[in-house]
Amino acid sequence: MTINEEALALHAAKQGKIAVESTVQIQSMHDLALAYSPGVAEPCRVIQKDPETAYQYTAKSHLVGVISDGSAVLGLGNIGAQAAMPVMEGKSILFKQFGQLDAFPICLDTQDPAAIITAVQQIAPSFGGINLEDIASPKCFEIEAVLKKTLNIPVFHDDQHGTAVVVAAGLINALKLVHKSIDQIKVVLSGPGAAGTAIIKMLQNLGVTNIIAADQFGILRADDSNSQAHKREIAATTNPEHVTGQLTDAIVDADVFVGVSVAEALTPEMIRTMAPDPIIFALANPIPEVMPEIAKTAGAAIIATGRSDYPNQINNVLAFPGIFAGALQVRATEINEAMKVAAAYAIANYVTPAQLTTEHIMPEIFEPAISDTVAQAVAQAAIDSGVAQKGVTAK
Amino acid sequence: MTINEEALALHAAKQGKIAVESTVQIQSMHDLALAYSPGVAEPCRVIQKDPETAYQYTAKSHLVGVISDGSAVLGLGNIGAQAAMPVMEGKSILFKQFGQLDAFPICLDTQDPAAIITAVQQIAPSFGGINLEDIASPKCFEIEAVLKKTLNIPVFHDDQHGTAVVVAAGLINALKLVHKSIDQIKVVLSGPGAAGTAIIKMLQNLGVTNIIAADQFGILRADDSNSQAHKREIAATTNPEHVTGQLTDAIVDADVFVGVSVAEALTPEMIRTMAPDPIIFALANPIPEVMPEIAKTAGAAIIATGRSDYPNQINNVLAFPGIFAGALQVRATEINEAMKVAAAYAIANYVTPAQLTTEHIMPEIFEPAISDTVAQAVAQAAIDSGVAQKGVTAK
Repeated sequence: MTINEEALALHAAKQGKIAVESTVQIQSMHDLALAYSPGVAEPCRVIQKDPETAYQYTAKSHLVGVISDGSAVLGLGNIGAQAAMPVMEGKSILFKQFGQLDAFPICLDTQDPAAIITAVQQIAPSFGGINLEDIASPKCFEIEAVLKKTLNIPVFHDDQHGTAVVVAAGLINALKLVHKSIDQIKVVLSGPGAAGTAIIKMLQNLGVTNIIAADQFGILRADDSNSQAHKREIAATTNPEHVTGQLTDAIVDADVFVGVSVAEALTPEMIRTMAPDPIIFALANPIPEVMPEIAKTAGAAIIATGRSDYPNQINNVLAFPGIFAGALQVRATEINEAMKVAAAYAIANYVTPAQLTTEHIMPEIFEPAISDTVAQAVAQAAIDSGVAQKGVTAK
Repeated sequence: MTINEEALALHAAKQGKIAVESTVQIQSMHDLALAYSPGVAEPCRVIQKDPETAYQYTAKSHLVGVISDGSAVLGLGNIGAQAAMPVMEGKSILFKQFGQLDAFPICLDTQDPAAIITAVQQIAPSFGGINLEDIASPKCFEIEAVLKKTLNIPVFHDDQHGTAVVVAAGLINALKLVHKSIDQIKVVLSGPGAAGTAIIKMLQNLGVTNIIAADQFGILRADDSNSQAHKREIAATTNPEHVTGQLTDAIVDADVFVGVSVAEALTPEMIRTMAPDPIIFALANPIPEVMPEIAKTAGAAIIATGRSDYPNQINNVLAFPGIFAGALQVRATEINEAMKVAAAYAIANYVTPAQLTTEHIMPEIFEPAISDTVAQAVAQAAIDSGVAQKGVTAK
């Protein structure tokens, strides 16, 4: 069987990957009277008086909504709500198995940004956090921004920020190996979409000052009126040396290449023009911007991809379960930059100096303590940055 | 501890009553490749080509959305979305424990009918059926009607139809005991709200021709322009003898009283004016329209209430788990009148002639086979009435 056939058989055998279970058994009229009528009225009354107590008396404190409109699903593109369900169920069980959180998939039968915002606002009472998933760029930016502003629970678009956190963690470790300082490096980013935009902001928060971003038309320019708003914004805060031209021009003397774009965007010739010990994050899936073997031959010091069949996999599962677990633990009202930076360092530092090699800059995703480690760091950062619920402490 | 204290302690100990579990374990990269990327893309592609296959490859076939706006919760009234969560979690676990279905609570942070309709339409791809819960009358009628028309999955407002099915089942059995035929009886219904309206329609479908409905202002009149639209509609199809006045006038010579109104609406004097062997369904909660002891003294032959501490409890849990299980089993596109009638007879006939007494007209809710029995009857009725998916057969 191919992996596709095997996956299809598994999905059919299980009829989906999630089940909603009772934590309370109802085997007598007394059980029923406690879990349902009339006893259930009491937690209702208490929550009505003080909505914060929903965290005590309902599943809200450990429940994440995994929400998509199916507009940009994996490598499949705009496949719509119904067809996106297997991915959202999959994401939900990753929350469970890697973060010990309950997550439920909601696929929205609308692709209009305003309608998506309204729908998420309306279903929010059921959840302690919202994980937006596979929503196309650029609408994902507005949707996330409005929801973050209007909801008092964490809202996180994993395709953006989860990816950014894990890339940042990898870069922190890669720089240790090539003995370069993060505030001295030049980074070129190819593909300023959802993930690319978040990676740029994250790297800036980590201290990178020289970033050049390029899309298929070349290096982004703040005065390019044909460009999308978020790309003009990126251009305005990047490219301090005002380099013009194409990716080929940007890459000269760069210390780091980060690709979240398309297969084979980076050639060996381009790698040869980079600064000594170049670091390559080639994250296009399934075929990266440059294959690791080719990058190595061209002189790359460290190569990371999105693939599990090469070393240094950039896998979001290292980040989002722990980030949500930490945010929910202290009832953070949002997941802010400080929390993401804390997550990146927690992931990076999970690899001990003794373990760190050019082929091992990332922790293994099945390390049992990774999500707890990330959660602790994120919870502490939430407290320190003032977005945690008062009186709630990190574990 | 009082029941309220005990219920509060239970809810706090469990932090809510639901958990979302994985049906698939992810312990290796291969597991991850099947349940998530890249294998998950295959069921996505198949569903994109044929949306019906979502029933095979996702949890849709066994997943019910329990949806409320918190506008009419139990006896608590309009407590809003957040405070309604304990009830909706409770309802969800009843689906699980009595119907072996997965159900997830969604509390909507809006009470506008059009907004509720839109929200439910948008989240529908995640679910195989929608159970509307605790939505106030009269807006519940419009919301359900539009959703039934626009969605191709079953939509069922349990407060209306679940109650109606169980009342009908009880009446079928009560009539056996007093040897009256359903098409010959006179029924008086007090409280034509959500449940009352559905009960009237259900009894009409069962063959009752003489029903009189009364609200707090008296017997409903089709020409009463101060009355709500649904009450004028009820008036137009009921009260064939054109009785006018108050409940006191309606009740004279009635064989059956059904109360879904307020405590103590029915007096012993009124019962004494009813036909011989009067049947009383006094369903106001927690205090019925007449207490069973009082009704008995006044001559009632059979008394049913909503309470578990008296015989003949009218409990929706006898109906909704089996109704949804049957509808989902054959992928019915709706829950129609034929399916509800089938459910009512299945519940009634669950009580054998040998078991049937004036104090035992309803099956016990913990009878293990009740939901399966109801499901089989409902599935068959769906097939017979042409709303089942072609080629799908009842168990």
